[in-house]
Amino acid sequence: MKAVGVIVEYNPFHNGHAYHLQAAKESANAEIVIAVMSGNFLQRGEPALVSKWFRTKMALLNGVDIVIELPYPFATQKAETFASGAVSLLQAIGCKSLCFGSENGDISTFWETINFLDSHHDQYNELIKKNIKTGISYPKALSLAFQTLSNSENLVNLAMPNNILGYHYMKAMKQQESNMEAITVKRKNADYHDEHFSSETIASATSIRKALFESQEKKLSINQYVPIQTQHLLEEYLACYGGFHEWRNYWKFLQFRILQSAPEELRNIYEVEEGLEYRLFEAALKAANFKEFMETVKTKRYTWTRLQRLCVHILTNTNKDEMKMTSLKGSYLRLLGMSKAGREYLNKSKSHINLPIISKLSSYKQDDIKLDIRASRIYSLGVSQHSRNELLIQEFNHPPIYIEKR
Amino acid sequence: MKAVGVIVEYNPFHNGHAYHLQAAKESANAEIVIAVMSGNFLQRGEPALVSKWFRTKMALLNGVDIVIELPYPFATQKAETFASGAVSLLQAIGCKSLCFGSENGDISTFWETINFLDSHHDQYNELIKKNIKTGISYPKALSLAFQTLSNSENLVNLAMPNNILGYHYMKAMKQQESNMEAITVKRKNADYHDEHFSSETIASATSIRKALFESQEKKLSINQYVPIQTQHLLEEYLACYGGFHEWRNYWKFLQFRILQSAPEELRNIYEVEEGLEYRLFEAALKAANFKEFMETVKTKRYTWTRLQRLCVHILTNTNKDEMKMTSLKGSYLRLLGMSKAGREYLNKSKSHINLPIISKLSSYKQDDIKLDIRASRIYSLGVSQHSRNELLIQEFNHPPIYIEKR
Repeated sequence: MKAVGVIVEYNPFHNGHAYHLQAAKESANAEIVIAVMSGNFLQRGEPALVSKWFRTKMALLNGVDIVIELPYPFATQKAETFASGAVSLLQAIGCKSLCFGSENGDISTFWETINFLDSHHDQYNELIKKNIKTGISYPKALSLAFQTLSNSENLVNLAMPNNILGYHYMKAMKQQESNMEAITVKRKNADYHDEHFSSETIASATSIRKALFESQEKKLSINQYVPIQTQHLLEEYLACYGGFHEWRNYWKFLQFRILQSAPEELRNIYEVEEGLEYRLFEAALKAANFKEFMETVKTKRYTWTRLQRLCVHILTNTNKDEMKMTSLKGSYLRLLGMSKAGREYLNKSKSHINLPIISKLSSYKQDDIKLDIRASRIYSLGVSQHSRNELLIQEFNHPPIYIEKR
Repeated sequence: MKAVGVIVEYNPFHNGHAYHLQAAKESANAEIVIAVMSGNFLQRGEPALVSKWFRTKMALLNGVDIVIELPYPFATQKAETFASGAVSLLQAIGCKSLCFGSENGDISTFWETINFLDSHHDQYNELIKKNIKTGISYPKALSLAFQTLSNSENLVNLAMPNNILGYHYMKAMKQQESNMEAITVKRKNADYHDEHFSSETIASATSIRKALFESQEKKLSINQYVPIQTQHLLEEYLACYGGFHEWRNYWKFLQFRILQSAPEELRNIYEVEEGLEYRLFEAALKAANFKEFMETVKTKRYTWTRLQRLCVHILTNTNKDEMKMTSLKGSYLRLLGMSKAGREYLNKSKSHINLPIISKLSSYKQDDIKLDIRASRIYSLGVSQHSRNELLIQEFNHPPIYIEKR
């Protein structure tokens, strides 16, 4: 059985994702789709809207056959590390290809871009360093350096968020000497960061979340942008857990943790660098809510998402030592769910898969999953006590979600 | 001017306290009363009902002339350490006597008890060790050992809470070679731990707090047990801060902190010993509220108050190193408030006082007060954002409370 891999967050699953799955399967000529999906906290440094289980159901009901969790040490990182971990898991589970959406949409241009930057390696790094010195953020410095270099060339525009991710997926594949084929599908309509609806059926997850948060009390108004299953699952989540997970629910904990910490303790948290501990402390002392806090901490030097990720690490108490990874490859496959075809695939491929497959968390005793476990415990504090227990029981004791038919 | 010292929590100030102040002044033949008072968190391991400023006002309006804060490293400790710190501060500020309430009420019996235990030192310790081995708590082991030893003697009953405190005050005075005279006043009516009202005008602070918590929404029903000023100040606190401080307000923070911590981090917190870190963790995972949590953690080995104190230390993130005190004496006098007579006394005595007197926190730059500051920040999280800022501003920038006339 030929499998194509995708790297996703599904926060929540929408029509654009459905379109991408369809296109991935077709262009890869694959029988099944395997998704590596972030768990509790996402690459933007935000809690996932709804639990990984609900997002897994959305995925399975809409065309994904196997959902694997991207572990915390990759999911909450800059694009490069995020990509490395995700690519390594798709490779380990035996995907023949990896298909990503991009603004560019042409795979050969991606390869040209990679080769171009490889051959301009020193110049590129020189330019980045120069840009950084002006006090801007690292991603901005990268993007500017690239623009300067690539001026007259026909290359991928690395100022676009999905192009950047795609570029890092391909770089990781090259570095890991992956035998997967890289495929890209041009994204339809919505920009990644779009906050507003601009098409009839396709909208960015950002704009969908925005609409959801604004309409929690009212009837959901996102029907035209998401499959019916997403809509139902979101409604079910609201009914079961009383609300979606957002930073607002965790702000008090973040503030408390910062205010009870000595500067050296904060400095020990992953990504707290260059005296940020003092900025964080002063902001936590005064801010009335998370938004105010972030606006006080924000400088030109750090992107909003980098700072949000750092806040996630404070929340989960993830220190520098714990994130010192000996490898940029995942060490286990946490199976969140599968379709009938997915199960068949796993049965057939098992003998070729070299990583442990975790079906039930409580039976996996290795220490390498501890950051995921801690993240789940903290994530569960975003809902009321009763719902929290349910979330935790599911996390530890439930088998993967199985979909017989869709 | 002759000053008598008292050691208090005033949580809240009630008629029994007023009676004690009166008796202290008379028996000591003193012109002014100096109170050393616990700040944000108390010896039972609980947040103070209302801020130290409101409790200072209650004290000043009802007969105290100077209020000094008992620092966190003494206030949240077992009786012995609590007593040591408090006695050292009363000594430092120049009190000629210390007057405490006790169930016994006879100072010579106290001295006999101290001498008796000194001369039976080895036997006493032997018995304590033996008792501890049966799995009971330290205070219980002490009390039993004492009962066994003192059988036929006419000594102070050290099973009574105020007798125990008094005994430790006097032991501390002896150890510190204090030149203060010890005076005790027999407590009227109410038992320290009484939960119910049993007299017309005197009730324990415990029963008053209980009534207050039960009647927060209704009109306060404690009028007959507290001076009118206490009543007004409690009403004012409710109006300004929206509620009293109780464990319930901090439970979420405690739970979050325990759930985000590795066992070795919890073990680093002061008083977390003998594998308690695992009990705490399991309890935090399941408990729906603070009471449930405490009931799950509780064993015969630890008293409820010892466990509550430990929870306060988790909340304030106070680790073993920070509590490793080089001396059992206080190193500063934090002045919370004074009457006209109190101010006069301070002006006259200043040159004889060897400890720094802190009138405004923001102008004191020594590190030894850092635990008090952290405790204030955490304490302030027990009220809403707006009130919190007020509490913090008061903590750092206000001069001591001054009462011209009462």
